[in-house]
Amino acid sequence: MQHRSVFFISDGTGITAQSLGHLLAHFPNVTFRHIRMPYTNSVAKAEAALERVARVGKEDNARPIIVMTLVNPELRALICRADALCLDLFGKFIDPLALELGVEPERNVGMSHAVDNNAYAERIEAINFALNHDDGITDHGLNQARAILIGVSRCGKTPTSLYLAMQFGIKVANYPLIPEDFERDTLPEALLQHTDKLFGLTINPDRLHRVRSERRPGSVYASLENCRYEVQMAEKLMKRLNVNWIDSTSRSIEEIATRVLQNINGDR
Amino acid sequence: MQHRSVFFISDGTGITAQSLGHLLAHFPNVTFRHIRMPYTNSVAKAEAALERVARVGKEDNARPIIVMTLVNPELRALICRADALCLDLFGKFIDPLALELGVEPERNVGMSHAVDNNAYAERIEAINFALNHDDGITDHGLNQARAILIGVSRCGKTPTSLYLAMQFGIKVANYPLIPEDFERDTLPEALLQHTDKLFGLTINPDRLHRVRSERRPGSVYASLENCRYEVQMAEKLMKRLNVNWIDSTSRSIEEIATRVLQNINGDR
Repeated sequence: MQHRSVFFISDGTGITAQSLGHLLAHFPNVTFRHIRMPYTNSVAKAEAALERVARVGKEDNARPIIVMTLVNPELRALICRADALCLDLFGKFIDPLALELGVEPERNVGMSHAVDNNAYAERIEAINFALNHDDGITDHGLNQARAILIGVSRCGKTPTSLYLAMQFGIKVANYPLIPEDFERDTLPEALLQHTDKLFGLTINPDRLHRVRSERRPGSVYASLENCRYEVQMAEKLMKRLNVNWIDSTSRSIEEIATRVLQNINGDR
Repeated sequence: MQHRSVFFISDGTGITAQSLGHLLAHFPNVTFRHIRMPYTNSVAKAEAALERVARVGKEDNARPIIVMTLVNPELRALICRADALCLDLFGKFIDPLALELGVEPERNVGMSHAVDNNAYAERIEAINFALNHDDGITDHGLNQARAILIGVSRCGKTPTSLYLAMQFGIKVANYPLIPEDFERDTLPEALLQHTDKLFGLTINPDRLHRVRSERRPGSVYASLENCRYEVQMAEKLMKRLNVNWIDSTSRSIEEIATRVLQNINGDR
């Protein structure tokens, strides 16, 4: 199997550069070693990076790949001298954008994750909201929620709520469907006032059984029989109440979150 | 002020494309409207996207910007016909990578967020770990933590722990420094066994006062005097115990997380 080292070199956190690392999954037959080099913001640090790239290239006996977000043109030029495939986000995105917009880009480092703006405050507020409205802790403030995720325990509600908060600053509550709901065959009163915000998650009972067994092995809660019952009842309830829902079994947090966003925006 | 609409068009979730949206912050004098078009995975949907791009371009009276991750070459070509600045992640990254690696990219959509791998399971496990070890809930399992964040209440420990879990699958616990710790002038026993994993956050007392006042207005806890005392004592304690720490006041979650990673990797 082919092996390559990938350097993420940035004069900031390098997080935008790293998010492109997802694209490497399109080469499943190559193993990639990720090396992060954030805050490469001086000639000395850029030269140290160059040396490391050269050393790793020799060790691997294969050209490294560099993904870089450097705003400083001098440092960009320096890094590009490396014997490596150099993928330069600034060159490929900011330069054509500047041309299109007819304005020079601001070169202050780190501004892409600036703290002093409303969007950032909204993200932090949304994370706190998700934590305070996790697992049906409270009904208080549900009117602030953009969406309320429902589903049986351990079907992916919490990670999805946190992801939506962290990435998009969207307030999402989540509420477990429990045997009591199935016996009464309806949702808690607090949720019935917000049916337009509900979005359901379901899960394959076998998978649920495995996930729950890791937490509470041998319990009724984790038994396959109970998992089958809960999932069946939850799906029945969601169908009857006309709640949009998807199966989380083989979907990532990102995929589930995208569906929730589509549901919020009404473009399903 | 110039205004532009930015379309994020993808045949998957579009999340990789959107992460490039951070780069738009380099044009602070342009307002950007973000339009997400995930799951654009058929000719019909691509044509609908094209129509929307044209319509919005007319409304704005300015060429839209398209950031796209489409694996299907036919759909890519179709979208590129739009009267827009077309920034094609596949063209700019996957194509040169394929050339460098000498292998064809897999074109199965959505694989960049595949669920069936260890890295994904690690992320979910790390999120659960962060939640179960938030705010010093338990000392149990601290030996599994890659880092333990300490600092006064409301200085940014929880969002940072969750971010590191979600983005990197890294298990991070967090532990509040409370007046009791300052009176005893040492850390709880459980933490003293893990001093190599400790990383401290501190915060400007005025900012802390504002943050806490939103939660508990008028309380001693939120008073400026108490905030000053706690911050001063926490910093003194961290200095004495030789704990690396940074000020979170004007740093984003991403920036703090990057510093924690550097501390874990020992490259400070």
